[in-house]
Amino acid sequence: MNAIVDSDAPRPAGRIAGGKVFLVGAGPGDPDLLTLRAARLLARAQIVVHDHLVGDGVLDLVAPAAERIYVGKQRGRHALAQSEINALLVRLALQGREVIRLKGGDPFVFGRGGEELQALIAHGVAFEVVPGITAACGVASYAGIPLTHRDHAQACVFVTGHLRDGSCDLDWVALARPRQTVVIYMGLAALPEICRQLVAYGMPAQTPAAVVQHGTSLEQQVVSATLADLGLRVAAAGLQSPCLIIVGEVVRLRAELDWFDSLRAAALQRAALETALSG
Amino acid sequence: MNAIVDSDAPRPAGRIAGGKVFLVGAGPGDPDLLTLRAARLLARAQIVVHDHLVGDGVLDLVAPAAERIYVGKQRGRHALAQSEINALLVRLALQGREVIRLKGGDPFVFGRGGEELQALIAHGVAFEVVPGITAACGVASYAGIPLTHRDHAQACVFVTGHLRDGSCDLDWVALARPRQTVVIYMGLAALPEICRQLVAYGMPAQTPAAVVQHGTSLEQQVVSATLADLGLRVAAAGLQSPCLIIVGEVVRLRAELDWFDSLRAAALQRAALETALSG
Repeated sequence: MNAIVDSDAPRPAGRIAGGKVFLVGAGPGDPDLLTLRAARLLARAQIVVHDHLVGDGVLDLVAPAAERIYVGKQRGRHALAQSEINALLVRLALQGREVIRLKGGDPFVFGRGGEELQALIAHGVAFEVVPGITAACGVASYAGIPLTHRDHAQACVFVTGHLRDGSCDLDWVALARPRQTVVIYMGLAALPEICRQLVAYGMPAQTPAAVVQHGTSLEQQVVSATLADLGLRVAAAGLQSPCLIIVGEVVRLRAELDWFDSLRAAALQRAALETALSG
Repeated sequence: MNAIVDSDAPRPAGRIAGGKVFLVGAGPGDPDLLTLRAARLLARAQIVVHDHLVGDGVLDLVAPAAERIYVGKQRGRHALAQSEINALLVRLALQGREVIRLKGGDPFVFGRGGEELQALIAHGVAFEVVPGITAACGVASYAGIPLTHRDHAQACVFVTGHLRDGSCDLDWVALARPRQTVVIYMGLAALPEICRQLVAYGMPAQTPAAVVQHGTSLEQQVVSATLADLGLRVAAAGLQSPCLIIVGEVVRLRAELDWFDSLRAAALQRAALETALSG
């Protein structure tokens, strides 16, 4: 048990007795990328409120007796609206329960974790935050793409590519700047517009870019191309949401730095062989 | 043992037999934020090559019998130059050893991990990458500062604030854009210039900003202010490198979202009490 963030520690003054919410990042998919702290919390969990983006392998680490509540959210199909999720967390905690609020990636990077905590505070509910490996970091590592590199990128920027009214409202001036890596979460539906706008705002059409589906898992699929032809290549490969988009010169390094695809292929081969032998 | 990234898996063709390097992220400091995979690799390690930024608590998880090699780097005092680190990793791996190359944070975010891998590839050495929680995510979580928030920041950008010839050469146009959170790694020495340039390029002088030393640990210290007075406040508090700088409206949320400081204070109080009782 960690000596610092110990749930047995005295509650700060001004907070009611009773429940507590742990806002926990589940990482990018591979359960091996969970933090030690998150794994320990899941193993003793009473109740877990989780998203669509939390990998099945991570959910396997939840205590078998724990209650699990699925609250969405796939694009366009939210099991619960954000306000309903906030209200649910408050209600459970006010019943005196210890609630694990489990989110894909890191709860403070496009996870609306801050909003959920504000709802808890408004009702005097105590909480802790357990960061997770955000998709950009996990997926880039398993795709063999360093997000920064002295020769190519001195900065990296993370945005979401959600469509609003059919259009993608991003700060194209900032994103098209040179010598940085741009990572776009949840941008597959807007991919053609993203590529078009980056070029319109000055990024060379030959800039390397990649789209990754199921990053860090056995099902990982990576399509790399240039801004000019990424949309067509991704459509041809039939990638589905959620995907991560990485744009920048560092994508070129994948050709030499990819280490995961061969291990993945070998693991799939072993699995197929085992199935054949047991059949 | 993870089924996918199993070091017993067949080596890809074209690589020599023998050693292997695991490029492993140690996370932001708190050993509880290590990944399950990293913890397992450290527990069975034969040899660990580590940086200054790896926390002591993380090193405590290394197998006692493992050989440890410290390769720097504190600012201005590199135990080994990068080229020497690269050569060391290659030499150890070519001896047939399994080498854990352990770096603070995430190896692909300002970790020069890509460069080390390119050196390994040039010598036919096999490798795997284990992402870690990058300082921006870990430190922000423990400081109660969401890196993104619907009402305040739709993007976050990470840069390093290293001084070169006494000046800090960053893309101020991009960094001064509104509605994003800017995180600056290793920028304490350049803090006055960073604040001045952001304002010169259009960021309001009243923009909230924070500097965090020893983030995620019992020694965590956070100074939050505005761009106008951050430099003076940080100097008055006597913060030392390494520090993380976070700039943007989200810093304001710390006033309500901070959860760690009270736990930290309670833990320090318990430790002091135990010392007094045993004395």
